[in-house]
Amino acid sequence: MNAKEQFIATQAKVDEAAIAPLPNSRKIYVEGSRPDIRVPMREISQSDTPASFGAEPNPPIYVYDCSGPYTDPAARIDIRSGLPALRAGWIAERGDTEQLADLSSEFGRQRAADHALDELRFPGLHRKPLRAKAGANLSGNVTQMHYARRGIVTPEMEFIAIRENLRRKEYMESLLAAGPTGKKMAGLLTRQHPGQHFGAAIPAEITPEFVREEVARGRAIIPANINHPETEPMIIGRNFLVKINANIGNSALGSSISEEVDKMTWSIRWGGDTVMDLSTGKNIHETREWIIRNSPVPIGTVPIYQALEKVNGRAEELTWEIFRDTLIEQAEQGVDYFTIHAGVLLRYIPLTANRMTGIVSRGGSIMAKWCLAHHKESFLYTHFEDICEIMKAYDVAFSLGDGLRPGSIYDANDEAQLGELKTLGELTDIAWKHDVQVMIEGPGHVPLHMIKENMDLQLEQCKEAPFYTLGPLTTDIAPGYDHITSGIGAATIGWYGTAMLCYVTPKEHLGLPNKQDVKEGIITYKLAAHAADLAKGHPGAQIRDNALSKARFEFRWEDQFNLGLDPDKAKEFHDETLPKESAKVAHFCSMCGPHFCSMKITQDVRDFAAQQGVDEAEALQKGMEVKAVEFVKSGAEVYRNV
Amino acid sequence: MNAKEQFIATQAKVDEAAIAPLPNSRKIYVEGSRPDIRVPMREISQSDTPASFGAEPNPPIYVYDCSGPYTDPAARIDIRSGLPALRAGWIAERGDTEQLADLSSEFGRQRAADHALDELRFPGLHRKPLRAKAGANLSGNVTQMHYARRGIVTPEMEFIAIRENLRRKEYMESLLAAGPTGKKMAGLLTRQHPGQHFGAAIPAEITPEFVREEVARGRAIIPANINHPETEPMIIGRNFLVKINANIGNSALGSSISEEVDKMTWSIRWGGDTVMDLSTGKNIHETREWIIRNSPVPIGTVPIYQALEKVNGRAEELTWEIFRDTLIEQAEQGVDYFTIHAGVLLRYIPLTANRMTGIVSRGGSIMAKWCLAHHKESFLYTHFEDICEIMKAYDVAFSLGDGLRPGSIYDANDEAQLGELKTLGELTDIAWKHDVQVMIEGPGHVPLHMIKENMDLQLEQCKEAPFYTLGPLTTDIAPGYDHITSGIGAATIGWYGTAMLCYVTPKEHLGLPNKQDVKEGIITYKLAAHAADLAKGHPGAQIRDNALSKARFEFRWEDQFNLGLDPDKAKEFHDETLPKESAKVAHFCSMCGPHFCSMKITQDVRDFAAQQGVDEAEALQKGMEVKAVEFVKSGAEVYRNV
Repeated sequence: MNAKEQFIATQAKVDEAAIAPLPNSRKIYVEGSRPDIRVPMREISQSDTPASFGAEPNPPIYVYDCSGPYTDPAARIDIRSGLPALRAGWIAERGDTEQLADLSSEFGRQRAADHALDELRFPGLHRKPLRAKAGANLSGNVTQMHYARRGIVTPEMEFIAIRENLRRKEYMESLLAAGPTGKKMAGLLTRQHPGQHFGAAIPAEITPEFVREEVARGRAIIPANINHPETEPMIIGRNFLVKINANIGNSALGSSISEEVDKMTWSIRWGGDTVMDLSTGKNIHETREWIIRNSPVPIGTVPIYQALEKVNGRAEELTWEIFRDTLIEQAEQGVDYFTIHAGVLLRYIPLTANRMTGIVSRGGSIMAKWCLAHHKESFLYTHFEDICEIMKAYDVAFSLGDGLRPGSIYDANDEAQLGELKTLGELTDIAWKHDVQVMIEGPGHVPLHMIKENMDLQLEQCKEAPFYTLGPLTTDIAPGYDHITSGIGAATIGWYGTAMLCYVTPKEHLGLPNKQDVKEGIITYKLAAHAADLAKGHPGAQIRDNALSKARFEFRWEDQFNLGLDPDKAKEFHDETLPKESAKVAHFCSMCGPHFCSMKITQDVRDFAAQQGVDEAEALQKGMEVKAVEFVKSGAEVYRNV
Repeated sequence: MNAKEQFIATQAKVDEAAIAPLPNSRKIYVEGSRPDIRVPMREISQSDTPASFGAEPNPPIYVYDCSGPYTDPAARIDIRSGLPALRAGWIAERGDTEQLADLSSEFGRQRAADHALDELRFPGLHRKPLRAKAGANLSGNVTQMHYARRGIVTPEMEFIAIRENLRRKEYMESLLAAGPTGKKMAGLLTRQHPGQHFGAAIPAEITPEFVREEVARGRAIIPANINHPETEPMIIGRNFLVKINANIGNSALGSSISEEVDKMTWSIRWGGDTVMDLSTGKNIHETREWIIRNSPVPIGTVPIYQALEKVNGRAEELTWEIFRDTLIEQAEQGVDYFTIHAGVLLRYIPLTANRMTGIVSRGGSIMAKWCLAHHKESFLYTHFEDICEIMKAYDVAFSLGDGLRPGSIYDANDEAQLGELKTLGELTDIAWKHDVQVMIEGPGHVPLHMIKENMDLQLEQCKEAPFYTLGPLTTDIAPGYDHITSGIGAATIGWYGTAMLCYVTPKEHLGLPNKQDVKEGIITYKLAAHAADLAKGHPGAQIRDNALSKARFEFRWEDQFNLGLDPDKAKEFHDETLPKESAKVAHFCSMCGPHFCSMKITQDVRDFAAQQGVDEAEALQKGMEVKAVEFVKSGAEVYRNV
């Protein structure tokens, strides 16, 4: 659907590209301790090793799957109905929530009553909003942190443990069972370099109890609003796989509800672990409803954006009451985490006066303007405990916003930025007092050598609450390529301990990303997060690299494409020069041609060694002189038939 | 010209895209101590700061320019004639070379005599090849290192010193002269974060004498074959700006001479500091001639590729004689550096037997095959001093090849790789004994946390000879995006001390890059090299970031585009959503729209402060309470007219 076309709810349909099957992939569900814990993974099957390389079977590998039911051919997808409420039973059985008769937010009720919006409205929601029962437990608190601290392992936590392990044990077993070469293969395919973890404490296997402990101590969060039961639970913390977030959202200048829903389904297809809806244009409320109801991943927002729309863009007219109503409105829709710029204090604002690029966070600049206009600390800061009360009643996690993050290399790690970080650490303590989950947002624009200081200070001042960074961009000189300038920073800070990386698209600083930009941003950040996992030594992280490298070495072209983050592009690139099907089994590619393919030559060398029975390194070394003549005689140049 | 079309020399013409002017850019030449030292730079002019931001003039900035005469509108470009022989006079006046009556290489003479090739042949070369005069100095040695060690500062060295400084002083002066705000602007625009240099020793200003010292001690090289007088001198060393190399070259499966020349001119337009011609297909000799005669940047090759073609791809039939003739053939054409895989020793080959991906260097695998077939050390190793004798007679630099580099994360930093590195260190000593310039090639595929070990070992074992790395790729799971997986590693290893980064294109592992891929690879590596310069604290590196960030903050859209590495793409991205010319002066972009533009809001805040005369940080802090009311009264929401 084109942005110019009228969006009509009854005609909305899923983006076909989001539900197309991924090549050689199958959605599987790993069952937990009870039948309603069904953890999705993507199984990528592989072809056997060609006879010339030893004819080994290559068991399927399992990869983390954010795409939800969209890639499950058994699922009935209708975005007008939304996704099944996967967690509804778990939430209900805890017995600490109540269904509200109506929306608690005044604005929410207004929108619901406005028939002019009927045509736009998501038609599939037939349940009432939930809220923590006052008195059901001591504090009317339904956060995962609250349960964790009381020793409760929730189904969400078990789900996550299974998800994070990615069937590593089963993969190892399948390798060992793969015929006579199984043991060798298992050694080869599961070997991994020890990492450099900078104090991370990642266990060899993630247990539900480990998840609970990490959440209890605030070192990880599970964004899981009770009003977003459609989410497949996931975790953000430095001792888990590094996650990535994709930003979507329209602006006053473009994009429709339909386009934003498509961007969401597109984001998760390629691996977005969470999605932030940063809409600032028209119909923010309705757009968000469509996104949440159709999203299997947690949704984050910046509520101040919508609050500002409610006062027609006049920051100084914002009030705690308007903001509070907005928080409740969004919490009852099911937003899983809120970016709240409560660390923008009056005393920090003058510190930005000599910056190159001032305040570049939208939320930060809005709050700075408010603070200056009223000359008092913002209501985000003064009402922080009130906000906590709301957050815990729905289990919305804080993403404490870095409103004073640097917007240029020049401004990196300055007083304003680091002052605010300290305040975010203090706010973390307050949120934790309420058992509200917290992550901390980070920069921004930082040269490579100054990234570590950000991570070190954050770990210290925010007591290992998960760090969630935008990039950072490591140079300012490449507009149009800021997914890459920032991907460099993201991989680096991920390695140092950042738990989630907020993607940057090629359009950063230039315009609103389209679907293609979203994909480019996602893939860049998936590879950056993976580079970080490898560098940290995350157990099993190297399995996919090993499998892909083996496929590459054995000229299993299709497997090489399919094991990669973007099979479509890999295949397209290959086919640009060698489009024929026969080229998919060729033992060379167009880069070097058949004579210069080093992998091919290496295989010739190995074949020779194997023919001579000298496949052990030592034997190869000792026996080579005698065998050299035979090597030449036996035809060093015999190329395998294609 | 399409690859399928017949290439006819007399009709060859330059790629129009390579000579189009870059926006708001002017080619300037900075004269050295003599009129024939004219150092090219690109001057990017900027518009004045809009009145609403203070109406400052923004002096032009100077950026490193690899594009040669192609971007000089005053130059007459005809690729059938080649470029002017810029260095011919300098070479001649040294009096240590002699013109040869004919080519010394038998193969070269054969090709010259073959009239079937006339149609393909570069028609513009009318001079005879040069070689060091035997006895002109003690050893018949014309290397820049030889001169450097004898205390001679060559015109090449002076040229480089001017080039590396990028008119930093003049820029500072132009800022100071820019009216009443000049001093403030100079402070803002030239401020830079101190770097983390890991032992690099970069002076505040590069002098010709410093260049000489660095070359003399082997810590930098100037690739400048006496038969490539068309080169604009450049330097590769850890105490200079980080450089990048672009690989081009056809394979048996595709691409024509014309396409390869176009890739070269395209590479240097976007910032390729050197270009390697890795052709392995037909007419390698003629293709190379066209490239060298038209290249203002040093050209590198891997001579073993051509030698292998001469024995029809049968590695075991390679001989020292064939290889020697190839070296001389290419040296007399003007190749500036040779990749020579002399470190692939017999004892290392069995160490690759248990690798995931064996030997992935083409040259390495060819030599391994030869070594095994003959069971002796390769002629590259046994004839290393003979090779030095050839190199010094033309001033070809060594790029000692890492034939055993890892081809997968699995194989990173293994015994085979590190064993070879040690041998490369030993060979460096031998080359230096001959005053032959040396750089060392490095991996490959290495996870982030294992990159530092590569750099540390290289610095130690190769005694700071410049490191020249391919990436490294930090994960294997993203075919189609390996410019990014490797750009991350490249920025990192550049920061640690690598002197030149060999680009990787999106087609890596999949196919032969086309022009678009070449550009994507170049820009990715330019930004990675720049991120490294910033992290090392290279003096003046931040000037371009500062200028671009200031333009961004002041909504000087065109300046933001033009100061970036790829103005065309930045503009194209911007115009996708806001194509109108008026949008180029808009104080917002399509990402946030006018109400949410944080930079705009920041400016509102600053304007208010300025109106009240409280532009100092302290005053702002103290006086704000009183002023707050006025701020609201005076209309916090007054948007500037667009």
